[in-house]
Amino acid sequence: MSRPRVLSGMRPTGRMHLGNYVGALQNWVSMQEQNESFHMVADWHMLTTGFEDVTRLKQDTLDMVTDWLAAGLDPKATPIFRQSRIKEHAELHLLFSMLVTKSRLERNPSLKEQARDLNIEDQTISYGHLGYPVLQAADILIYKANMVPVGEDQVPHVELTREIARRFNYLYKPVFPEPEARLTAFPRLRGLDGNRMSKSVGNTIHLTDSPEEIATRMRTAYTDPNKTRKDSPGNPDGCVVHEYHRVFNAAGAGEIATACRAGQLGCVQDKGDLARILSDVLAPIRERYHEIKSRPGFVEEVLEDGEARARKVAQATMDEVREAMNLP
Amino acid sequence: MSRPRVLSGMRPTGRMHLGNYVGALQNWVSMQEQNESFHMVADWHMLTTGFEDVTRLKQDTLDMVTDWLAAGLDPKATPIFRQSRIKEHAELHLLFSMLVTKSRLERNPSLKEQARDLNIEDQTISYGHLGYPVLQAADILIYKANMVPVGEDQVPHVELTREIARRFNYLYKPVFPEPEARLTAFPRLRGLDGNRMSKSVGNTIHLTDSPEEIATRMRTAYTDPNKTRKDSPGNPDGCVVHEYHRVFNAAGAGEIATACRAGQLGCVQDKGDLARILSDVLAPIRERYHEIKSRPGFVEEVLEDGEARARKVAQATMDEVREAMNLP
Repeated sequence: MSRPRVLSGMRPTGRMHLGNYVGALQNWVSMQEQNESFHMVADWHMLTTGFEDVTRLKQDTLDMVTDWLAAGLDPKATPIFRQSRIKEHAELHLLFSMLVTKSRLERNPSLKEQARDLNIEDQTISYGHLGYPVLQAADILIYKANMVPVGEDQVPHVELTREIARRFNYLYKPVFPEPEARLTAFPRLRGLDGNRMSKSVGNTIHLTDSPEEIATRMRTAYTDPNKTRKDSPGNPDGCVVHEYHRVFNAAGAGEIATACRAGQLGCVQDKGDLARILSDVLAPIRERYHEIKSRPGFVEEVLEDGEARARKVAQATMDEVREAMNLP
Repeated sequence: MSRPRVLSGMRPTGRMHLGNYVGALQNWVSMQEQNESFHMVADWHMLTTGFEDVTRLKQDTLDMVTDWLAAGLDPKATPIFRQSRIKEHAELHLLFSMLVTKSRLERNPSLKEQARDLNIEDQTISYGHLGYPVLQAADILIYKANMVPVGEDQVPHVELTREIARRFNYLYKPVFPEPEARLTAFPRLRGLDGNRMSKSVGNTIHLTDSPEEIATRMRTAYTDPNKTRKDSPGNPDGCVVHEYHRVFNAAGAGEIATACRAGQLGCVQDKGDLARILSDVLAPIRERYHEIKSRPGFVEEVLEDGEARARKVAQATMDEVREAMNLP
């Protein structure tokens, strides 16, 4: 039996932080061996909410893909590509747009959430923003992916993708599989200040930060405010430093919690320990990062190679689609 | 100064009838000399309202283009192409979809009219149907057309196209002209039964019908019901036969009206005369038609050649667009 196809994508947000790693990248790396993976820079999706400022699109794409490679994505095993370089996504998106009603898209819960988060009024939602789940369906189905690793908020989109696949298969010919959502196991990692992790807030640690940068950033982390002295007993629940221990230092986290509660571990010490642990965990990523940075043009080459391979698959699907739809 | 660019398009509805000729084709033929024209088979547009039955798409496209050529479009002077063969239309459509709000499209009067005509309830309007003016904007602007020959009902779409061009030029770089609608001079020709001309009703005469077919079809035409005998006085106003005289026999129409009113011209005679006139008018079209039909593969060659030329222009525009938008 052939390996399951997996489509993973991320908007080009530039350098990757710990949240991107834990929430997605780590999972992508671990999935690339057992599956046939496709990794997509979702630059067109970026435009659905960010069409007004495009100055960083190019650099953010290169920075992100550099970090993907540093994190362990193997470009020989999996095509890494820019969505906007595979025109066939736009073509399939257009065809799919006939198979979904406007009202179905208006009921998309993620759209409402996004609009609220970004302070977009209903009257100013763009046509493309309304339709971004249709574009996602095209992204997924053009590779006939069987599996899509997503966060909870994206599950409704995979459901819509399945609906579109069924509708197409029923109306024309059975071309598409019905892909399954695969939820990322780890919950969302909070930022150092305890709030939602966000690069614009600056509460992140980048995957490729130096040990010194990690230590400096870590000192700003939010801990139990009632632990006022290093020997007063603390509460690890709700403490960001402890949350990171549980993720990056699972084996040691229990002991640390006990010491914190007993007033035997000060926050400064704890943060220093975590910074060292993180620094060790990220060492191979940092190493690969510097290796990649020493090879000018390497990331572009990886992308162009990935695009040629992805395009081949996408074009083969589109040949089937056009034939099924009897397009002239 | 370079000649103005003109983009004309029609959905692939198969063989052309007199209404298509008077309402559009004749105009296209007369415009192709002074302008740089592009003639598009709008097959993707066909899907916005007809995605469920695609069985005739291919044949209808060939039949229509055969009649375009018969009517006098010169494929050497103007590229004739299938929209779905130029992927860049879908790409530009996707990018434009970020620049138009959903509510702007909901206010499109033609959408409401179409939905009413086709008995489509608001809840079942597809996403692609809502967005078809965005696709039209992409069709027009990808060739940087300055002029678009349209019917009255399409004027709001050209207005939207201008809005999109302005918005793009303002946000990124001045890439697009603001095209003007050019209204077709002739009003819509009614069907032989006096109702709206429609192939499905069967009240049409095809451009390439034989003289015998024209005569047979003409006998079914609707005339003044109060003119009960050939020598009773008739009223040419509202009479379809007379309407056709005014269009195809402008020089003789006045005299005929006088004779009809005076009871000096019977309807049978009048229809026979008109059939002969029409047959003469259409003779060169019929001749070219038979010549084209005698060359198997000719229409496909015309299309492929036109597509190569149109694609080149479209790709050059997209290079500018991607550069202006800083796409990676």
